[in-house]
Amino acid sequence: MGLEMLARHLREFEGVSRKKPIAEIFKIFESVRHEYGNVIADFGDDAAVIDTGGDDVILFAADGIWGRIVEKSPWWTGYTSVVVNVNDISAMGGKPLAMVNIMSSSDPESIKGIMEGIRDGVNKFGVPMVGGHTHPDTPYNSLAVAIIGTAKKDCLIRSDTAIPGDIVVFAYDMDGRVGKNSPYSWDTTSFKDPQFVRECYLVMVTIAERKLVTAGKDISNPGSIGTLGMLCETSKVGACVDLAKIPRPENMDLEQWLKIYPATGYVVTVKPENVQECLQTFSQVGLTAAAVGEITDSKLVEIQDQNEKAIVFDLTKDVITGIGE
Amino acid sequence: MGLEMLARHLREFEGVSRKKPIAEIFKIFESVRHEYGNVIADFGDDAAVIDTGGDDVILFAADGIWGRIVEKSPWWTGYTSVVVNVNDISAMGGKPLAMVNIMSSSDPESIKGIMEGIRDGVNKFGVPMVGGHTHPDTPYNSLAVAIIGTAKKDCLIRSDTAIPGDIVVFAYDMDGRVGKNSPYSWDTTSFKDPQFVRECYLVMVTIAERKLVTAGKDISNPGSIGTLGMLCETSKVGACVDLAKIPRPENMDLEQWLKIYPATGYVVTVKPENVQECLQTFSQVGLTAAAVGEITDSKLVEIQDQNEKAIVFDLTKDVITGIGE
Repeated sequence: MGLEMLARHLREFEGVSRKKPIAEIFKIFESVRHEYGNVIADFGDDAAVIDTGGDDVILFAADGIWGRIVEKSPWWTGYTSVVVNVNDISAMGGKPLAMVNIMSSSDPESIKGIMEGIRDGVNKFGVPMVGGHTHPDTPYNSLAVAIIGTAKKDCLIRSDTAIPGDIVVFAYDMDGRVGKNSPYSWDTTSFKDPQFVRECYLVMVTIAERKLVTAGKDISNPGSIGTLGMLCETSKVGACVDLAKIPRPENMDLEQWLKIYPATGYVVTVKPENVQECLQTFSQVGLTAAAVGEITDSKLVEIQDQNEKAIVFDLTKDVITGIGE
Repeated sequence: MGLEMLARHLREFEGVSRKKPIAEIFKIFESVRHEYGNVIADFGDDAAVIDTGGDDVILFAADGIWGRIVEKSPWWTGYTSVVVNVNDISAMGGKPLAMVNIMSSSDPESIKGIMEGIRDGVNKFGVPMVGGHTHPDTPYNSLAVAIIGTAKKDCLIRSDTAIPGDIVVFAYDMDGRVGKNSPYSWDTTSFKDPQFVRECYLVMVTIAERKLVTAGKDISNPGSIGTLGMLCETSKVGACVDLAKIPRPENMDLEQWLKIYPATGYVVTVKPENVQECLQTFSQVGLTAAAVGEITDSKLVEIQDQNEKAIVFDLTKDVITGIGE
């Protein structure tokens, strides 16, 4: 497959295009958001940041599980709801504190499966589920989870703060397996020791407190390039990534890997002088990280191989979430 | 209608019976909840209480909107999601800080309506919506909202702390109208000044900080008697309520009123010496409150008129949420 074709597939990937309605939602709230002085960051970041006056801020995020997965495996739905929510907090350099959930189902077996998945996620990640609400009579199954965490106010990792000249680093847990329910899910936690899993996601707290990065996000449904695109959009910058430098499991197809949602995966931007320490810090907890490209002032998110370059997103006209506009 | 029949209707009311699955969910989490020392209260209270070490605790709650309402009015769905979440925090004596939402819909008109309802709720109650997640491709419409707030650690209003001998107080905003979408919804906010609405729900902070009550809850889907039943269940007590003493709007049917979900309504339990000050405090912000009965050690939730008594819940065998077991 040519580079142009790959770029097009990444741009048109459903994991990316599903993000578009956020722009409309954002506009409805735009009119009222500035009167709340204690909200440091809100839409566009992995978690909102609430300043209550102390040295620590509260991080607050929510994630729902894609309906398709709910139908395929209730257990995985419950389990993965914990994974994605913990990632929203860790991506900001925060420690998760607690979760609540809202579940809808009229099928007792599905409810049981979802709840057991949540329980196993709670045990794995060490974050309690402290409450919620259940709709016991809906014709569909769905699960929504919200999470809070804390972070030091002056050590937050945001996604709108990347600067041209920063180095782009991708970090993954390479020891994983493609999920049973989707070719674009990379499970690296369900079969591992809780201690290892907790150290992996808490690495972002270390990285935040050592101020090793200028911006960051957890790699989610839009995949590695799509997530980098969202970071560039909110930061009002571009990026160029060298595909050969991206760490990739053996025998894994490149396009599939670039679209995959890793259970533990981050994109961060780093000043050149901090790259070495950043890579080492990821490596110390068992993650594989590499410098894969550079932030540019072009507003183009590009991929390149040894021969050519192709544009995945032209942020002067493409809209991913629309939040950087 | 006889008193026994009314008691049966209240016991069998769908707003109450929908609460039953909570018991099963609670059992799945029971095994893992005690390892989290910083969680002061969780399932069974209106909000979970997270202790982060300071004088203030974080309150954390979530609520979804009943599917039936989502179909009838997207605007009302969005608006009422703010109402019910703010009530979860105020019921504990807390100040709401921020909300996040998870919305599912494939219909742009519904999304717009829900979002405008949320925006109007945000403006009315003064609590920002700071983030969330949207599923733009579900065959159903649903909305889940989570909220955080803060409260002074030593001034929390819990629902599991009522004591035999306490007086039961019901407080309502009587200036309202039955909702367009349900005979059991009592709207007292959508047509009123934000300043009035905010003072109404913040009265619970005043009541908490003056330590005027021993326990409390906001009156929600189970109605006045059902909510009192939940409070008695988690407190492991009973109660007897004199129907004639319950404040009720003119021309409002008694059964309907007892089942109604008021936008602003609380049940609190009060030591006899504090009843007068508690009623006055409610009255100062425009709410109508009355001492309607007493907490007993019987584990029966009873209603009485001038002639007879009838049991609504026998908590030695009836299960509302099962959390007090």
